Amino acid sequence: MSKKILVLAGDGIGPEIVAEAIKVLDALQAEGAIDVTMEEALVGGAAYDDCGDPLPAATLEAAKASDAVLLGAVGGPKWEPLHFSKRPERGLLGLRAGLGLFANLRPAFLYPQLADASTLKSEVVSGLDIMIVRELTGGIYFGEPRGVETLESGERYGYNTLCYKESEVKRICRVAYDIAMKRGKRVCSVDKANVLEVTEMWREVAIETAADYPEIELSHMYVDNASMQLVRAPKQFDVMVTTNMFGDILSDCAAMLTGSIGMLPSASLNAEGQGMYEPIHGSAPDIAGRGIANPLATILSVAMMLRYSLDAGEAADRIEAAVSKVLDQGLRTGDIMSEGMRQVGTAEMGDAVVAAL
Amino acid sequence: MSKKILVLAGDGIGPEIVAEAIKVLDALQAEGAIDVTMEEALVGGAAYDDCGDPLPAATLEAAKASDAVLLGAVGGPKWEPLHFSKRPERGLLGLRAGLGLFANLRPAFLYPQLADASTLKSEVVSGLDIMIVRELTGGIYFGEPRGVETLESGERYGYNTLCYKESEVKRICRVAYDIAMKRGKRVCSVDKANVLEVTEMWREVAIETAADYPEIELSHMYVDNASMQLVRAPKQFDVMVTTNMFGDILSDCAAMLTGSIGMLPSASLNAEGQGMYEPIHGSAPDIAGRGIANPLATILSVAMMLRYSLDAGEAADRIEAAVSKVLDQGLRTGDIMSEGMRQVGTAEMGDAVVAAL
Ligand SMILES: CC(C)[C@H](C(=O)O)[C@@H](O)C(=O)O
Ligand SMILES: CC(C)[C@H](C(=O)O)[C@@H](O)C(=O)O
Repeated sequence: MSKKILVLAGDGIGPEIVAEAIKVLDALQAEGAIDVTMEEALVGGAAYDDCGDPLPAATLEAAKASDAVLLGAVGGPKWEPLHFSKRPERGLLGLRAGLGLFANLRPAFLYPQLADASTLKSEVVSGLDIMIVRELTGGIYFGEPRGVETLESGERYGYNTLCYKESEVKRICRVAYDIAMKRGKRVCSVDKANVLEVTEMWREVAIETAADYPEIELSHMYVDNASMQLVRAPKQFDVMVTTNMFGDILSDCAAMLTGSIGMLPSASLNAEGQGMYEPIHGSAPDIAGRGIANPLATILSVAMMLRYSLDAGEAADRIEAAVSKVLDQGLRTGDIMSEGMRQVGTAEMGDAVVAAL
Repeated sequence: MSKKILVLAGDGIGPEIVAEAIKVLDALQAEGAIDVTMEEALVGGAAYDDCGDPLPAATLEAAKASDAVLLGAVGGPKWEPLHFSKRPERGLLGLRAGLGLFANLRPAFLYPQLADASTLKSEVVSGLDIMIVRELTGGIYFGEPRGVETLESGERYGYNTLCYKESEVKRICRVAYDIAMKRGKRVCSVDKANVLEVTEMWREVAIETAADYPEIELSHMYVDNASMQLVRAPKQFDVMVTTNMFGDILSDCAAMLTGSIGMLPSASLNAEGQGMYEPIHGSAPDIAGRGIANPLATILSVAMMLRYSLDAGEAADRIEAAVSKVLDQGLRTGDIMSEGMRQVGTAEMGDAVVAAL
């Protein structure tokens, strides 16, 4: 049975990088390695421009009806003046909530070919391979009550709620432990249990849930220390699991340790294995339309999609190997360019991956 | 009139490092450069062991009656099994709240003599000099409601509240702008205004408050991007101002960029200029009592104390110059030791600073 992919190109460089990812899917399809059908829809600023809504009902319905969503990127200065409820990010958050994508997998992986791109000394980051598992549909992102009120005194008062139910913590920990079982079997749960009661509960549940995983070595770290340790000795980590907000901060920090965020994919999964896949970088409006953006993070997101949602692990392996091969060939987009390499544009990089498959 | 300092040595290496800071104060006092009286009290684990309370009423009263508090460090594995309300951190949080120390100044400064200690490439961090201004008595650390309940379904539900009043945001922004006026006049306010309503208000108030500071160049950054930018290009920052929780995470990340957290002081101030001063590192129970801890962060905290609470800026400058001088002399404690330097213990380092004053 053919699997359905919904393609949401989004804003900025989104359409350009997604086009290269589709080339890769088409190539695998042509040789019979996968069996997918693709449909496109609007999200983010592009959707707002079309119908005044960053997440049109039709897009959410199409996403629900698909096995996987491939997203480019959303946002840009054009839509920044809009009200909170209309901004491109709402499209993204609405998809996460609407599809129940509670598990965000954010690998921070250093390609040996790009080791020099890191701002860290090479001995500190060479071989880096962290998987951050971030809770994505709960916590302070979605907690109620929230808002800004005017107090009797006339001054404004703003509030958001960081809240988790035991079941939400349990299911994200299970995802982290399952992933760790296929890797180094070490999980570091990051919290602020010395200050925040909700994360004291998080820690307890992380420990209780680990009882089903006798082989997992579970440790705990306060979030402030985790941000230090990522800079001090990032290779100490295998899998990290944490809340939505802490995960947002730490995964960006971890990604930047590699120096090449144009290379990093991400997956957001729900309980049924449906997923949304996107590069971790943004819509880069400053370089949009110039054909110079790096499509590799989006292509690697397709690999994650094949592995986690489309049951095509072999094709995923081939994509990852092809990306490594084009790097070996010395091809580089501008963001990862270095001396002695050959600078190529978005389309040429996509073509090279297809050729290397 | 003599100024009153309350000395809280605390736990772990606290007593050792504080002893060296007192040597420096004594030396300045002896030559008439300052006029202070010192008193000691218990806090943290040491206070719990004495009377079952990490912040005895007598300690808080003594702190209120003083011009400044010098704190070593609190905490250790011995007290970790204790209930939340009895743990050493409660002493620290109680002092912050009890004294109204809303402004936490956390410099991240790279000593040229220690440039190699950083895990980052030297061109990325050489000359680094960031001041992080962290709100310290509000936000999710103190927000109500908070707690863990059992839902009807039988599962636990934990919650904390991130909340700010306009006036709280305004006063911390003013502190940041005032400090920036004496530095590079650039302030980056860090928020998550695209997701959290309370920080959307924070951003608005930051902008409004800046109207009184026409010379300040104010920028805004989302917290996830800030954690990336600290790793990518930390020298872009002059002063950063942010919430209690974001400040906790980012200031530790920024501190670790220097590679020598044993060198970094901090100040926590209230509206009256009273302050608490402490090194940013912890109580390091693993090396406590061995006379090898680095006292320089504590000595530099004394410099901040003289500058911000005791109106003795000249003496502060002299301490900072003396610290730089002992580094020039090649003296190093174990944590900052490198080839060709001379390794010294805690007391010898303190004596060297006194000699270099
Ligand atoms: C755009 C924003 C709402 C989003 C988030 O905070 O989750 C982004 O930073 C991310 O990490 O995907
Ligand atoms: C010990 C802890 C409560 C404290 C905090 O989170 O504020 C510490 O991390 C700090 O930054 O001073």
